[in-house]
Amino acid sequence: MKKSYISNNVIRRLPRYLRKLDELQKEGIERISSGELGNQMGLTPSQIRQDFSCFGEFGQQGYGYNVRALHREIATILGLRKKFSVILVGVGNIGHALIENFSFRQFGFRFLGAFEIRKDLVGTSIAGYTVMDAADQDAFIKDNSVDIAILSVPRPSAQRVADKLIGSGIKAIWNFTDVELDARGSGVIIENIHFADSLMTLSYMLSVEGEEQ
Amino acid sequence: MKKSYISNNVIRRLPRYLRKLDELQKEGIERISSGELGNQMGLTPSQIRQDFSCFGEFGQQGYGYNVRALHREIATILGLRKKFSVILVGVGNIGHALIENFSFRQFGFRFLGAFEIRKDLVGTSIAGYTVMDAADQDAFIKDNSVDIAILSVPRPSAQRVADKLIGSGIKAIWNFTDVELDARGSGVIIENIHFADSLMTLSYMLSVEGEEQ
Repeated sequence: MKKSYISNNVIRRLPRYLRKLDELQKEGIERISSGELGNQMGLTPSQIRQDFSCFGEFGQQGYGYNVRALHREIATILGLRKKFSVILVGVGNIGHALIENFSFRQFGFRFLGAFEIRKDLVGTSIAGYTVMDAADQDAFIKDNSVDIAILSVPRPSAQRVADKLIGSGIKAIWNFTDVELDARGSGVIIENIHFADSLMTLSYMLSVEGEEQ
Repeated sequence: MKKSYISNNVIRRLPRYLRKLDELQKEGIERISSGELGNQMGLTPSQIRQDFSCFGEFGQQGYGYNVRALHREIATILGLRKKFSVILVGVGNIGHALIENFSFRQFGFRFLGAFEIRKDLVGTSIAGYTVMDAADQDAFIKDNSVDIAILSVPRPSAQRVADKLIGSGIKAIWNFTDVELDARGSGVIIENIHFADSLMTLSYMLSVEGEEQ
């Protein structure tokens, strides 16, 4: 694949494109113009053309984009064909929700299992996965070369558990703890889910709308 | 407040600035330069100056930004001083997690309570809130002029429940269902939490890093 610099903003839009293209494929649509795609996504055609131009040519003037080819390419760029392995650390409410509802496989990830420190939860079953003992986590990560850990432990233990994961050789942490983790110097990638950021964005839109009325 | 057009990208960055400024205030820091702020946030000083220039002047050349004033202004822009009211609809795992862990008040929201259709959950208590019957939801929204509904119901009922909320006069929906809701023509604001988008972004970073090594 041709590599060129792709800006962070474009990267952040790629999952949205992928979801849209998924939908179009399910509807049996084979080609779509930048105008129609923009219309459905609330983007300008020129923005779409610019985004896609970062990673090669998918459209032909006047013919639109090939939905399947574009889907495949975006999935490849996002690394979804690498089948990264994932474990979950901390089976509280969020952990439960992810194991039960999140389609890891659909997005190209291999979910290997969940770990918990609370002895009353170890050995219980969630959506077919038997919760494993946090004491075995380090060996499991090493034996299975686990790529990604989902961190969903209580806030006070977030940094301590992250440090342990980093020490075990994890490559990335998907952080649900709302704690800004310090992973400096480790080379470990941290991706945060900040619920508050999303609610504040909503608040802004609501606020602006109220003033316009 | 002077109103000027603020781009979507800037808006999306404001919550991050707010979190950072919160932190700085807690550390007792009163002023910070765009250089130092950029350094701590992984942004260039010119990006920071450009972002803040959208909504007035907070810095003085050579003196840096007043942390408190900047915090106050960003909170105002985000509508956090309007004390928007919030209810939660659907107390599954995600609903539970939000009621128990999310600091609505810290971010300037008034959390009024949670609704559920499952009779075995109605009347139970979560973090001090008694779960209310979904049958009373419509009247509650009207009586209390509720601004925001958090939608955390199972996927198959997402659109139906959203339609009901819209009919009740809700102004915005914070959508955790991973269903693209159709609210066209209603003027209701939809803000989606897409877990998958975040994991795909992480996957991209991991993928690129692997290829660079």
